[in-house]
Amino acid sequence: MCGTDAPVAGPVSNGSHPVQGTPSSSPYQNVNDFISNVNRFKIIESTLREGEQFANAFFDTATKVRMQRKSSVRPNHLPIPTFRLVTLRRPRFGTACDPSDEFGVDYIELTSPVSSPQSFEDCKTICGLGLKAKILTHVRCNMEDAKKAVECGVDGVDLVIGTSSFLREYSHGKSIQMIEKIALEVIEYVKSQGVEVRFSSEDSFRSDLVDLLTLYKAVDNAGVNRVGVADTVGGATPRMVYDLIRTLRGVVGCDIETHFHDDTGCAVANAHSALEAGATHIDTSVLGIGERNGITPLGALMARMVVTAPQYVTKKYNLKVLKEVEELVASAVQVNIPFNNPITGFCAFTHKAGIHAKAILANPSTYEIIDPALFGLTRYISINSRITGWNAIRARCDQLGLTMTDDQVKEVTAKIKQMADIRPLAIDDTDSIIHSYHMGLQKNVEQKA
Amino acid sequence: MCGTDAPVAGPVSNGSHPVQGTPSSSPYQNVNDFISNVNRFKIIESTLREGEQFANAFFDTATKVRMQRKSSVRPNHLPIPTFRLVTLRRPRFGTACDPSDEFGVDYIELTSPVSSPQSFEDCKTICGLGLKAKILTHVRCNMEDAKKAVECGVDGVDLVIGTSSFLREYSHGKSIQMIEKIALEVIEYVKSQGVEVRFSSEDSFRSDLVDLLTLYKAVDNAGVNRVGVADTVGGATPRMVYDLIRTLRGVVGCDIETHFHDDTGCAVANAHSALEAGATHIDTSVLGIGERNGITPLGALMARMVVTAPQYVTKKYNLKVLKEVEELVASAVQVNIPFNNPITGFCAFTHKAGIHAKAILANPSTYEIIDPALFGLTRYISINSRITGWNAIRARCDQLGLTMTDDQVKEVTAKIKQMADIRPLAIDDTDSIIHSYHMGLQKNVEQKA
Repeated sequence: MCGTDAPVAGPVSNGSHPVQGTPSSSPYQNVNDFISNVNRFKIIESTLREGEQFANAFFDTATKVRMQRKSSVRPNHLPIPTFRLVTLRRPRFGTACDPSDEFGVDYIELTSPVSSPQSFEDCKTICGLGLKAKILTHVRCNMEDAKKAVECGVDGVDLVIGTSSFLREYSHGKSIQMIEKIALEVIEYVKSQGVEVRFSSEDSFRSDLVDLLTLYKAVDNAGVNRVGVADTVGGATPRMVYDLIRTLRGVVGCDIETHFHDDTGCAVANAHSALEAGATHIDTSVLGIGERNGITPLGALMARMVVTAPQYVTKKYNLKVLKEVEELVASAVQVNIPFNNPITGFCAFTHKAGIHAKAILANPSTYEIIDPALFGLTRYISINSRITGWNAIRARCDQLGLTMTDDQVKEVTAKIKQMADIRPLAIDDTDSIIHSYHMGLQKNVEQKA
Repeated sequence: MCGTDAPVAGPVSNGSHPVQGTPSSSPYQNVNDFISNVNRFKIIESTLREGEQFANAFFDTATKVRMQRKSSVRPNHLPIPTFRLVTLRRPRFGTACDPSDEFGVDYIELTSPVSSPQSFEDCKTICGLGLKAKILTHVRCNMEDAKKAVECGVDGVDLVIGTSSFLREYSHGKSIQMIEKIALEVIEYVKSQGVEVRFSSEDSFRSDLVDLLTLYKAVDNAGVNRVGVADTVGGATPRMVYDLIRTLRGVVGCDIETHFHDDTGCAVANAHSALEAGATHIDTSVLGIGERNGITPLGALMARMVVTAPQYVTKKYNLKVLKEVEELVASAVQVNIPFNNPITGFCAFTHKAGIHAKAILANPSTYEIIDPALFGLTRYISINSRITGWNAIRARCDQLGLTMTDDQVKEVTAKIKQMADIRPLAIDDTDSIIHSYHMGLQKNVEQKA
């Protein structure tokens, strides 16, 4: 594989055309209708709550603090003084602190302080860090949990209760009327403490629509900051999401937060669809870690949104630290970054087929919707396979400083393909074939002279 | 972690409610409008074409044959005789052949025979295997490539040409008029040979809509079997897909094939959206391998479609071999199955949070949209963390045959959470805490007696 110096593809400067270089005659690109929030969404980063529900997750305090710093502090915010790290229970991670080295999410959501004594302490510790991101904690919708949450000093309390018939029957056993009564009491309490409050149903897409809208309308009237819609089982499709959020947008005046599990591979698209329909906040976790196979991954959502709303995303988030944040979390929960991860998968910007390589060499926008440089990454053109083409080999010859005619390049390309049919080639092998062919040409010239 | 004997969640028997257990009062579930093909789609499995464009892919003939057998032969088809495997160039893989052990895709797509001499030979070999799945090869839209394809004995030729202004300028340099002229000649030739033919644009979502529709209408009139829409750069959203396919559905009478790259994490949702809008065929590859981070993965699409159309999917495809097919391909291209892979990710059916575990124990449908048994897999309830709950611990106590009161279970749960605050616990650790607590209880009883 070889790097290229070809000009990089950049997102278009005008946010109204989500896909770069879209001809104006294509009517299916512009999703900027009046209700869409694709250009002004907020991220609720839940690696330290949803992510703690991931099978492999065990986050000690120092890990929590370290992860959260990476994803929460916006550029130009005062750096978190080092002592804030070293006063923690297990300061085994480094203490270097570069304020430009932070991602910049809007909210951080933490595990309920009721879960365990350490969860309570961690919640207090993190609230005391003076982060620019607001700190939320996610608790069951009851007074005891809400009081414990407020006690931690959080900026907001995320209340949740199951509303589907499944959860009402097999989980908490409460009727919709009882849910509403409890919710209104808890909301009144949290608001009285000057703390933000969100009310979310659980398993919203399998809940009765009239029940849902009734509840949301009641809590909206009670003054919640956000209502939450959750695809807890990961079964929703973008169209179902659009329809539900669009309806809800007409019923409540408050913000709408959405939470999508990825069991059927739609968590990123569902988040996008929710924003198009008027949702305001998206829950994410780094690499998507969470219950089962997780939720909308922060990185994949950035891949999506940087294409849809390049100006907003590049201005607001520090995309260049994404890879480092992902590596930190992958290491903490002992998983590999998936080979096919958007942006940071090892081959996300590798081009291999001959016709792709030829066009990428002429203009990267031909086969790249995202400029890897936005994320501090580079592209590669793979030339070591039977599906390579002579334009890619020509570029490699130029890099190696070897002068050949087009016919000669085509001839050496045929030799490379022949060899690649027999066994996998490394770049060294390919270069050797090229050098050896070139030497043969020179010998011929010398013999003739 | 411990297996449970709780009854498993099954997809609903009525295909008209895509999400199982949906109350009839929820209006956003039913996508069975007249144009939708979610209940009758076909799969074009392109691991041996698109997948060969994956950075790590080097498939020798035996690997190709082996992969393809797994994904193409439908149950009840005659087994491929063993000699068909051993006559191949590199019969280093096993030759056992159980006809019930095949996935059952509709089409297999192979790398162009023009790519290299071995690609040509492989194409001929695979066409000679007598597979139930139809064999396609994917070639540039020109007469030379088409002739070579037909020569291999394929069932169908997939023609492709770039139609976006990017590709017309930087790749082949042809005008739309010229593309149409060439396409019609090649299509006429392929049809005259009694071979299926598809015409696809490349980078369809960045192509001029009028150009696209003009071309598709012309090739439809010329009698192609399918037109293809390709999101070659992976930038489309489900809404863009729905709108374009819905429009195209009104313009052409032939089948509509779709191909989605996953650069922005929407490849599965886009495929679903395309079917809702009237597309008939979806391109997949095993684990999604392909150029850059790949295309719609076969497994994730199955996760999506088994929820949307359970009857169709479970009847048509042998879902229980999915894991084996994925492991075969992962091994061939030297990647790990992503930790967050739908269905086969290591924790796709692991439940951890206390409230989830409690409900899952009562009824798996509460937090599972897919029954793992459909894929020959099982669920796990993780109890070794601070976010576990006493209902999950109660279930474990029952499994261990230890009798305790609710208060006692709650007390030992508190001890487990306390320990899990300090360090990661294995199931042995948790069991030890439970056993030790239970022994303490017994001693107290004995002392009192």
